[in-house]
Amino acid sequence: MEYDLIVCNATIVTLDNDYTVLEGQDLAIKKGVMAALSRTGNFDESVQVVSGSEPLLLPGLVNAHTHVGMSYFKATASAMELFKWLKWGWFYIERMDDEDIYWAAMLACMEMIRAGVTTFSDMYFSETVIAKAVERTGLRACLAESVMEPAGGMEMKATIAAQLATSRSFFEEWHGGANGRVNVMLAPHSPYACSADVLTQIGSLAHDLGARLHIHLSETEAEVKQAYQRWSMSPPAYLNSLGLLSLPMTAAHCVHLSDGDIDLVDRPTFGVSHNPAANLKLQSGTAPIPKMVNRRMAVGIGSDGNGSNDVVDILKEVYLASIVHHWTEEQLPTKTCLAMATREGARALGMEDQIGTLQVGMKADMILVSVDQARTVPVHDPHATLALTSHGSDVTTTIVDGQVLMQGGDFLTLDGEEVLAQARERSGRIFGVPSPLVAL
Amino acid sequence: MEYDLIVCNATIVTLDNDYTVLEGQDLAIKKGVMAALSRTGNFDESVQVVSGSEPLLLPGLVNAHTHVGMSYFKATASAMELFKWLKWGWFYIERMDDEDIYWAAMLACMEMIRAGVTTFSDMYFSETVIAKAVERTGLRACLAESVMEPAGGMEMKATIAAQLATSRSFFEEWHGGANGRVNVMLAPHSPYACSADVLTQIGSLAHDLGARLHIHLSETEAEVKQAYQRWSMSPPAYLNSLGLLSLPMTAAHCVHLSDGDIDLVDRPTFGVSHNPAANLKLQSGTAPIPKMVNRRMAVGIGSDGNGSNDVVDILKEVYLASIVHHWTEEQLPTKTCLAMATREGARALGMEDQIGTLQVGMKADMILVSVDQARTVPVHDPHATLALTSHGSDVTTTIVDGQVLMQGGDFLTLDGEEVLAQARERSGRIFGVPSPLVAL
Repeated sequence: MEYDLIVCNATIVTLDNDYTVLEGQDLAIKKGVMAALSRTGNFDESVQVVSGSEPLLLPGLVNAHTHVGMSYFKATASAMELFKWLKWGWFYIERMDDEDIYWAAMLACMEMIRAGVTTFSDMYFSETVIAKAVERTGLRACLAESVMEPAGGMEMKATIAAQLATSRSFFEEWHGGANGRVNVMLAPHSPYACSADVLTQIGSLAHDLGARLHIHLSETEAEVKQAYQRWSMSPPAYLNSLGLLSLPMTAAHCVHLSDGDIDLVDRPTFGVSHNPAANLKLQSGTAPIPKMVNRRMAVGIGSDGNGSNDVVDILKEVYLASIVHHWTEEQLPTKTCLAMATREGARALGMEDQIGTLQVGMKADMILVSVDQARTVPVHDPHATLALTSHGSDVTTTIVDGQVLMQGGDFLTLDGEEVLAQARERSGRIFGVPSPLVAL
Repeated sequence: MEYDLIVCNATIVTLDNDYTVLEGQDLAIKKGVMAALSRTGNFDESVQVVSGSEPLLLPGLVNAHTHVGMSYFKATASAMELFKWLKWGWFYIERMDDEDIYWAAMLACMEMIRAGVTTFSDMYFSETVIAKAVERTGLRACLAESVMEPAGGMEMKATIAAQLATSRSFFEEWHGGANGRVNVMLAPHSPYACSADVLTQIGSLAHDLGARLHIHLSETEAEVKQAYQRWSMSPPAYLNSLGLLSLPMTAAHCVHLSDGDIDLVDRPTFGVSHNPAANLKLQSGTAPIPKMVNRRMAVGIGSDGNGSNDVVDILKEVYLASIVHHWTEEQLPTKTCLAMATREGARALGMEDQIGTLQVGMKADMILVSVDQARTVPVHDPHATLALTSHGSDVTTTIVDGQVLMQGGDFLTLDGEEVLAQARERSGRIFGVPSPLVAL
């Protein structure tokens, strides 16, 4: 038998640059790669994932910014702005040990697999245990250990030297790990939580290792105001003054970018993660996404963590991105927003040669989505249907690296009952003590 | 046997004024009414809907403003503001006959039943066929035949006299119909699509019949600007000058209300339908909902039609209402938003004595929702979980008037395959001709 796996009789939404849609196709997978595509019936169907019902087959969704260690934080803490929320949440973050973080990561991975996310980009603490969750669940991930000095009520126990050493050893141990599914990045938390000296040190480490940076940038008006007070310039200008913008970087949020800031960050190595739900929930504002998309910048889409979003459901983010911006018709926003969760998300992480479109030669990361129900019928255009009417729970099959992770709601690489039970027990203990700042 | 139906072993989210939650309860239903509530195990369980898994049981969701005849319009026409969109859509509305409208209504009813909506308030044309869909599917509905003069590219074929005669005969035929599940209202489309004379005529008919009014009000800035140009006052002030605000009324949108407007409409007979998704999609703005909620006005929540929203999924609207407003913590926004879709929605339709809370004596309209999955676990507070993480597709059972309409995704009062097939065939024909204004 020539191929490892064949997905039969699907309508293929390629998400390539022409938004090609191909009906009645079979896709053959070999050694984790999309090997061949043909009209249905031309392959030997000895191994098949799905057949006959013609659901939509599209590239797996890319979650460009999240914090999987915070999955127990969903549906808590409403109506706080960022800095208050960070202070509130830090109390609970500090109550979590590595085992708690591992099971929190497993819960978020389970949620993402169910909702069709095949690659996520994470910034958190104890990334080694998060890498273990990635290895076990079969997902693909960019993982970055957060480095930060005391800021906004958050204070790490480890010194900066120790944090940098952890980042380096994590890179050395895990970059390219889990059969190439782990891509390690470096994460200065933000310009406001790292001094110039720390930012420079991380930049030079990233340069030495050839690692990409993952950072929070210009999330709130208060952050930008503070930057002008401290450095007489905007956060992106500040990063540029330290030489960091010359390094490959994925910046989360970018809500408060001026036109001048956009001029500064509009470069091939700069990726944006747009996080519409978190920006609304924390009342941060609405990012100037249409401006950046118009310049063909690499704009992906992220859920942020479950604490500032509640769910890590990228189709929901696609929907929000479709409706919160004042797009013009020429921009075909629904297609654009779906691309932000696939092709452009891959670009924003510097991974466009591996993932993000459904084309022969790409990594075999893909999902099947059912559109056969009252909420989604009739389908005028599959891109619009997916962006505007589909739920993460409509995903029927999730495949990463040619391995089926979920089919029909059943998880093949994790024990769902165990993950939910661990989450209930651990979150009950962690949240059993009220945060001094404010109750749920 | 004393009772008709018993729902066993549920956690009851009453949505009463104290937001009482009761664990491990059985609810007994008799003659379409919630008859008794008890600790699990005290009723004779010869008839049971659900047992053992303890999902959440809450009052059925109320969709305070929709247009079910437009269900084929989902996932079309992005990035148009209201007046352009109306002109674009009217071309297709005119291509639909009564059979098309009936099956469009069936599709929307199927979507709502699946997503836990038990009562909807509709404004459209050919409401007689929509009433037949309500009768058949078992839903509860407020139905109002839209009355309008030519405006914004829309033009009815029938004269105003004929439209008013239709409204009257529809009221006489259907008010209290379908075993009391149909509540007929009168619908002047909007201040901009009805002259003063027409508004006065409808007001006097409503007074004679004892019917409530359903109207679009202050949806866009352009509408308010035009009102000042034509009448030197705001749309609510204009309605007041014609005596209409003294009649019971549900007003959809209310996006552009000044503080003076809010003073004017803050009365016990005035209900608001907040439609956050439609207001975002058509770029209309964000309604001053926190101000109205703070005054304890009756603010419900609506999906608007599938044309300006895409889906008629009220839990999505609850979520959007939770994140698009700058609430303060004191307002407990997630609870408030869930109440807008239940108790307050009932108030906004003048039906709070029948529906909207889960209490003995109320109509037996209720839903079971599963929260047993990675997206929703852990549950810190069921109100927050439902508002921020639940999907309409998490609804496992929908009951109206004591009748089970959906259980485990199976529809008991309609043939789902038939509804989807009719929708595909009819929408294909209707949308087969491109609108002269703009393509999909």
